[in-house]
This record gives sequence, C-alpha cells and structure tokens, in this order.
Amino acid sequence: MRQKTVAESLTTMTEMVMPNDTNPIGNLMGGNLMRWMDVVAGICAGKHCEAYVVTASVDHVSFQRPIKNGDVVTLIARVTRAFTTSVEVYVEVFAANIKGSDQRLCNHAYFTFVAISDETQKPIPVSEVIPLTQEEQKIYESAIRRRELRLVLGGRMQAKDAVEMRQLFTTI
Amino acid sequence: MRQKTVAESLTTMTEMVMPNDTNPIGNLMGGNLMRWMDVVAGICAGKHCEAYVVTASVDHVSFQRPIKNGDVVTLIARVTRAFTTSVEVYVEVFAANIKGSDQRLCNHAYFTFVAISDETQKPIPVSEVIPLTQEEQKIYESAIRRRELRLVLGGRMQAKDAVEMRQLFTTI
Amino acid sequence: MRQKTVAESLTTMTEMVMPNDTNPIGNLMGGNLMRWMDVVAGICAGKHCEAYVVTASVDHVSFQRPIKNGDVVTLIARVTRAFTTSVEVYVEVFAANIKGSDQRLCNHAYFTFVAISDETQKPIPVSEVIPLTQEEQKIYESAIRRRELRLVLGGRMQAKDAVEMRQLFTTI
Amino acid sequence: MRQKTVAESLTTMTEMVMPNDTNPIGNLMGGNLMRWMDVVAGICAGKHCEAYVVTASVDHVSFQRPIKNGDVVTLIARVTRAFTTSVEVYVEVFAANIKGSDQRLCNHAYFTFVAISDETQKPIPVSEVIPLTQEEQKIYESAIRRRELRLVLGGRMQAKDAVEMRQLFTTI
Amino acid sequence: MRQKTVAESLTTMTEMVMPNDTNPIGNLMGGNLMRWMDVVAGICAGKHCEAYVVTASVDHVSFQRPIKNGDVVTLIARVTRAFTTSVEVYVEVFAANIKGSDQRLCNHAYFTFVAISDETQKPIPVSEVIPLTQEEQKIYESAIRRRELRLVLGGRMQAKDAVEMRQLFTTI
Amino acid sequence: MRQKTVAESLTTMTEMVMPNDTNPIGNLMGGNLMRWMDVVAGICAGKHCEAYVVTASVDHVSFQRPIKNGDVVTLIARVTRAFTTSVEVYVEVFAANIKGSDQRLCNHAYFTFVAISDETQKPIPVSEVIPLTQEEQKIYESAIRRRELRLVLGGRMQAKDAVEMRQLFTTI
Repeated sequence: MRQKTVAESLTTMTEMVMPNDTNPIGNLMGGNLMRWMDVVAGICAGKHCEAYVVTASVDHVSFQRPIKNGDVVTLIARVTRAFTTSVEVYVEVFAANIKGSDQRLCNHAYFTFVAISDETQKPIPVSEVIPLTQEEQKIYESAIRRRELRLVLGGRMQAKDAVEMRQLFTTI
Repeated sequence: MRQKTVAESLTTMTEMVMPNDTNPIGNLMGGNLMRWMDVVAGICAGKHCEAYVVTASVDHVSFQRPIKNGDVVTLIARVTRAFTTSVEVYVEVFAANIKGSDQRLCNHAYFTFVAISDETQKPIPVSEVIPLTQEEQKIYESAIRRRELRLVLGGRMQAKDAVEMRQLFTTI
Repeated sequence: MRQKTVAESLTTMTEMVMPNDTNPIGNLMGGNLMRWMDVVAGICAGKHCEAYVVTASVDHVSFQRPIKNGDVVTLIARVTRAFTTSVEVYVEVFAANIKGSDQRLCNHAYFTFVAISDETQKPIPVSEVIPLTQEEQKIYESAIRRRELRLVLGGRMQAKDAVEMRQLFTTI
Repeated sequence: MRQKTVAESLTTMTEMVMPNDTNPIGNLMGGNLMRWMDVVAGICAGKHCEAYVVTASVDHVSFQRPIKNGDVVTLIARVTRAFTTSVEVYVEVFAANIKGSDQRLCNHAYFTFVAISDETQKPIPVSEVIPLTQEEQKIYESAIRRRELRLVLGGRMQAKDAVEMRQLFTTI
Repeated sequence: MRQKTVAESLTTMTEMVMPNDTNPIGNLMGGNLMRWMDVVAGICAGKHCEAYVVTASVDHVSFQRPIKNGDVVTLIARVTRAFTTSVEVYVEVFAANIKGSDQRLCNHAYFTFVAISDETQKPIPVSEVIPLTQEEQKIYESAIRRRELRLVLGGRMQAKDAVEMRQLFTTI
Repeated sequence: MRQKTVAESLTTMTEMVMPNDTNPIGNLMGGNLMRWMDVVAGICAGKHCEAYVVTASVDHVSFQRPIKNGDVVTLIARVTRAFTTSVEVYVEVFAANIKGSDQRLCNHAYFTFVAISDETQKPIPVSEVIPLTQEEQKIYESAIRRRELRLVLGGRMQAKDAVEMRQLFTTI
C-alpha cells in the first residue's frame, strides 16, 4: 500500500450560516458545526484511505468564538497519522463575515475514522501518512498521546498503561 | 437561586433516521448524531438554567454500534452538575429498529453549556444541581475530574495543576 | 399474539421550533406540527405492532395556542386501542419557551395506523392494548365512537348505521 | 369588502416525492403530505383574505392510495366559504409517476384558516366567497354542516345544538 | 410516437419563500430559484416525454426583481419544441406577497432535458410538440436560434456554422 | 478603492451528494448543482467586493457528465473582471467518488453579481480585478464579449451594437 502525503487528501469546505443553523439568539449551534466538521473530515479520510470510512471518535471540542447568522465558515481537514485500519484527521474552523472581514480561528478538533470494505463492511488496512513539514511532523508525533487518551476515555486501555499520558500528568 | 433536581430538566428526544442522515453505506453519520445530541442537551440545559445557553464544549465521543437508515434513535439528556455560570449535561443515545426490537445503547457524551443573558449576551449564574439517586451522586462527583481534563485539553489549565487527573494517571 | 400495555410503546419527542418551521409572523405552521405528530405517532404504533405501519387517517385537529420560533415542543404519543390490523394513537402536544417557562397544552389528535407486512405489504393482525389506568380505560372505550365517525366521514359507513354517533346527536 | 370568486384564489402546487419524504418502505409519509396540504391551503386562504392567515383546524383526513418515492404530487386548493374572520379551504391531492402515468386522486381535506392583522395579530373580517359552478354551490352549502361538526369536535358547541349533524344522524 | 400539445404537460408549481431560502438581506437567493425552475421544468419534460429526463443545459438567466422572504412564487413550465431525444422547456417565474398583491414577472429561462431509458440510461426519442396558439408558434420557431447559440456556447458548433445567429448579429 | 488579485477571493466548496439531491435514477439534479454554484460564487463575490451581493445573471450552463449519489463535488470560484458595480465570477465543478477516484471536470459557468449597500440596498462601486497569470489575463479579456452577449440576451443591448459578438459571428 502506497504511503501518502498530507496534501494529497487535504479538503476545504465552505458553508454560509443560514437561519436554521442558528439558535434563537443568532449564533451557529455547536451541533451544526460538529456535523460540518464530521463531513469534511470524513471526505478527507475517504480520499486518504481510498475507501468508505465511518466515524470512530471525536476528541474534546471547545467552542470559543461565536459564529453568527450570515457568516462564512471555512473548514480545512488534514490527515495527521494512520493506525493499521484507522486514520486521525485534524479539522480547523475559520469564520469571517459575508464581506470577508473579521476573520478568526473558531475551533479545531481531532476525528478518527475507520476504513471499511464495501463488501464485508469490515475494517481494512489504510495507507501510512508521510509528514513533510515541521508542523505535520509535530502533529504526527503527538498523535500517539491523543490515541492513548482516546483509548483510556473509551474504556479500552487502563490509565496505568497510558505511558504518554502518565508522563504528561506526572512531570512537574 | 433555587437548587433543582435532575428530573426537573430531564429531556427525551426521538428521531427516525432518514436517508439524508446516512452515508452511502446506510449508516447514520457521526456528525448528525452529534447534532441531535447537542440539541437535546441544549434544551435540557436551557430548562435547568432557565436561560439561553450556548455550547461551550463536548467531551470525547466514541461511536461503537452502527445505527441504520430507518432506525429509531432515542436520546436522553440529564444535567449532572453546575459550575457558577455553566452546567454539564450527560447524553445517552439508544437505537432500535422501526419494529422496536434490537434495542441497544449506542453512545454517550458530556456537553457543557454556558448560560447567557438575552440582554447582555454575557454569562449568568446558574442553579445548583441536587443529585438524589446513587447514580446521580456518582456522576455528580466525577464531574470535577472531567472538568479538569476539559480545562487541560482546552489549554486553560496546566497538566501539573490537574490534581484529579494526576491521581488517575499516577496511581498504579 | 401478546397483549401489551400502553406504557410499553409510549413515545416522547422533543423539537425546537426553527425559523423555517414558522410563517412570516413567527408562528409554527400547522402543517409542520402535523408532520411531527405523524412521526411520533408512527414510531409509537410501530413499537406496539412490532411492524411497519402506514398512516390510515387523522381525526379532526384544531390549533388553539400559537407556538413561536425558538419554543420547545414536546409530543407524547400513546396507543389507545387496537382493531384487527390497525391501532389508534393519541398524541398530545405541549410547548414551552426555551427557558422552560410558559408551559401549555397546545394540541391533541387521534391518528390511526395500519400494520403491514414488509414482504407482502398487506395488513397484518396487531396486538391488543390493555388499558390499565382509569384514563386509559376511558380513552379505550371512547375509541369505538371515534372509529364510527371516521368510517362515516371516510364514506365507509352510512350515518344511519353509526349507532354511537346517533346516540350522541339524538340525546337531549 | 369585495366578494370574490373561487377562481381568484385557486392555488396549484406540484411536488416531487424525495427519499427523505418517505418511510423505510418507500411510501410518502402521511405527515409530509399534510404539511404540503397546509402550505397550499394557507397560500390560497392568504390570497382570498388578502391577509396573513393561521391554520385553525383540519378536518378528518384519510389516506387511501400510497404515493411512492419519485412520484409527482399535485395539490389544488380552493376556498369554499367564508365565516366572519375565517375561511374554509378544500384541498385535493393527485399523484402520478414521473412519466405522467398512473394518475390518481389520493386524498382530500378541509382546512380552516383565520385571517389576522399584521399589526395587532387579532382576527379580521374576510371577503365572502361567491360560488359560481354547481360544484362550488354544493360545497358552499355543505360547509355549514362541516362547521357544526368542527365546533362539536373542538368542544365549542354541544352535540344537542348541532342542528345539521343531528339531522344527518337521525334520518333513517 | 404520438405528437402532443403544450397544454398536456404544462406544470404549475407554487412555493413560499422561507428564511433559509434567503440571503442575510432577506432576498431569495438566485440559486434557490434556479433549483425550483429546474424541478418544475423537469416534471414538465418528464410528462411530455413519458420518460425519465436529465437536465442538459440552462440558457442565460437574469434576475431583475428581488423576491423577499415570505413571498409566494409561482412557476409555470411549458414545452416549446422537441429535438430527436431532447425537449426545450420555457419557465416563467411570478412572485406576489403573501396577501396576493404586488404581483410581478420576475424571471424566465429556457431549459433543455434529454429523455433517457430507465434500463439502459441512454437517450431515447421524444414526442413532437404541436404548437397551437400564436404564442406557442412563435416560441416554437425561435427554438432553432436558441439551439444554435447553445451549441456554439457549449463548444459543439463553430460560430461560422451558426446560420441563424450570424444573421442576427450581421443584420443592420 | 484598492485593486485586488484573483487569489484574494478564491473560494473552494466541497459537498457530498446526498439522496435528496438526486433524481430517482440516482443522478445529482441540475438545479441542486446550480444552487451550490450560486452559493460559492456569491461568497467569492462578497469577499472581492467586501459587500453584500445579489445574483444578477447566470450564463449558459451545460451538464455533461452525470454526478452520482455519494459522490464528492468540489466547486472553485474565481472573480474574472469587475464592471463599475458588478463582478463576473467563474465557477468550475469537479466530481470524484467517495474513495477519491474517477476525478472529472463536470461543469463550469459564469455568474455576475451586483454589490449592494446594506443601508440603501442600492448598487455600490466594486474593486477592480488584477489578472496576474496568463489564464487570468485571458479570461479577463474575454469578459467583454460575455458581457455583450449577456446584454443582448437580457434585452438591454441591440444585436447590431454588440461589436465583439458581431465580429465572432461574421468572421469566416
């Protein structure tokens, strides 16, 4: 299976916030933003894996800056690292008003997707990610720590076995 | 401000999975499920806080069992604990087929919402939660640990200051 | 075929009124409310019958209190009585504002659904309903009268044969 | 206030049944059809009354022939008679497949709308309907009986005072 | 194959402009109007051809008068002329406010559709159009010129071979 | 007013084709594609003009290659040239399947938008476009010819005054 760069599957999505996407005080609802993030991340993962993919998990997401009705939202998804049959995707969310000003980073999150076979619907192996830039290298390396936390939080690893996490919380 | 029980704001939502909610292999897309979870959690938080609320964060979510086109999804949201101007809400997701059989727990997650004033759009204080059952007591107590992790992951607390987390990862 | 209680298939649905659900003066449109009522009633009927169901009829619906954009609507559906291959479902609609106050009963209606086989798409027999509470008993008994009116209005029974209806309109 | 003919406000709506409008066995859901009927009837009532209108009630609706995914649905709405501040609208629903064949009448129902002032949101008087054809004349006259039944079913008239209904059910 | 009149497939569609159809300054977005025009034209073409049809092209569309949130839009589609396996459809768009006043022609366009076989998904021959009225005759004749321009603009005919167009632009 | 490059407002949109976007034979409906094209072009125009914009016209669009349910559609919008208060935008549409293969150019079109003031809703002057690459230069120059054709087709210029068009159709 061919190794692939991050650039090969980078995906950009642009959405305009419509009235039905907002709550009664005119802010984009968090759940709608997560739905868009899941779509762009899934398209990116599908391209990298050349396969159907299903969302396996979403890491902690926090919402800092409100996005208003009529704003233009740009979402950029990049694969960070592959793990046997799954791939981690990093999504960044930017917003600006309709005139293109007041640009701001609003949000980011890590999604993991499992690649599945269309015939058997079972997980299949995925291509490795080749990190090229320093930025890509850094996010590639920290993927191990995020994966450990995911396994602990998902109840599939015991806290005591989370080597990287233990180090994070015990270092003073 | 009056303290309130969990039952006072418990919210149940039922959705039928429609074709547009699914991916090309007929599974409910993760992002659509997160959107529903955000709506039910937000309605629950609004009732508890008697105020407009905005999503502040969503903790780690993992998707274990696929939900299919035509399935009926039941979401139950309960407040777990309040923190000055925010409230944590626990959402459980159950699915069954249209005939009511093959019932299963599919998913759960913790959302936090900030209560805001409709006039100033600034955070306002919220009612405390009174945990009554053993279950409610347990989830009330563990809220401290989840909050610490949220602050660390959101970059608003240093790992070394996360007392509860350190204990979790250093106890062998 | 096992008899079933009303509680076994009781279904609760919660919806938040969004801008596209309202008319230009900001009230939830009657047709959107009927669509939600049909969905919750159909899910309830499907659970009771353990089968696919199709809407056979909706009795007279009147709309008394307006529901506004941003309001939270709670719909509760209960089976009342079964008739060979069909089941009558009673739906009640409550609304409240987003802060949980101004709670009010807005609407109610009776739907009938026919249970059908997935293979033949022909009607199939359904489980009987066991009314337990006094309320359930009363609505179970009056189902006969509603059914008669339905048959007369649907042109499948002559007014002179509608024993219950005749009694209602001739008693002074 | 000018009297108006039925033709002046006759409204035709055409919809194509899409996957999300159907249940898992591919039939248009009853609730979706009622939503379309409410929209076309409301537009027709708005034209006749030259005012904003809100749905006051829907009479008994029965669903005889299934409508399938991809079918083309034609809805025709006509005012039948006006009553001080409200107007009754008759809606007929026809379906055909995408090739224009298998044409059939599927459904019909009577809606009533109240005309309201945009400033006060209070009911306002509406124009009278002039029935011209024999068909229009007949449906104009029977409107009295339907209105009586509506008032009895809506709990705003006692069965013993429903002169027309009593006559219907007592004549042998 | 039977020749057909224009009236046999004339299709009328009525839509109410909802908040999500408009841009932040409350005007119906051009793209939403084009979507409705495509649907009504496609239904009309399907009826005339008694076949599945796919949009082949849309001629120049200009948007003169803004349509506002809450307005009622009426679209009328008529076949103008058939060409072996395709048919040209003329769509006119009218708008009025919810009270039925401020009626105006907003838009018009020519769509072409290709009829295709459901089995082979290949183009199939279509019925000829019989123009009856003077209006229908005129639009039938000018179809040749529009078709030539379409072929030149679509890169399937050289400008020098467009006999009708050359005449239009060279006549002084 | 500052002149701007094409790159400053280039906008990329990615959409996944869902069941409700397709006709009964599983192809993306032309009207839905035009709606997406209008949105991405409008966002691009808004950025260039730093103003609200409304669609003024769409040039001839032809649909060559079918796009299927589940396909991923990428739309790229670029300004080509500004004219006092309006701007022309070129949109290209690419499709690929969910696995990222079978990539193909499906469509392209020219849209024009008028920039309007949020206060007066009247047209306002827009920034000039600086074409940099050879490609941008070429499409900038041909904009004059497209504009002439638009004016003739929109009935705002007589064929005999369309200097560029006359040349195109008279040169042998």
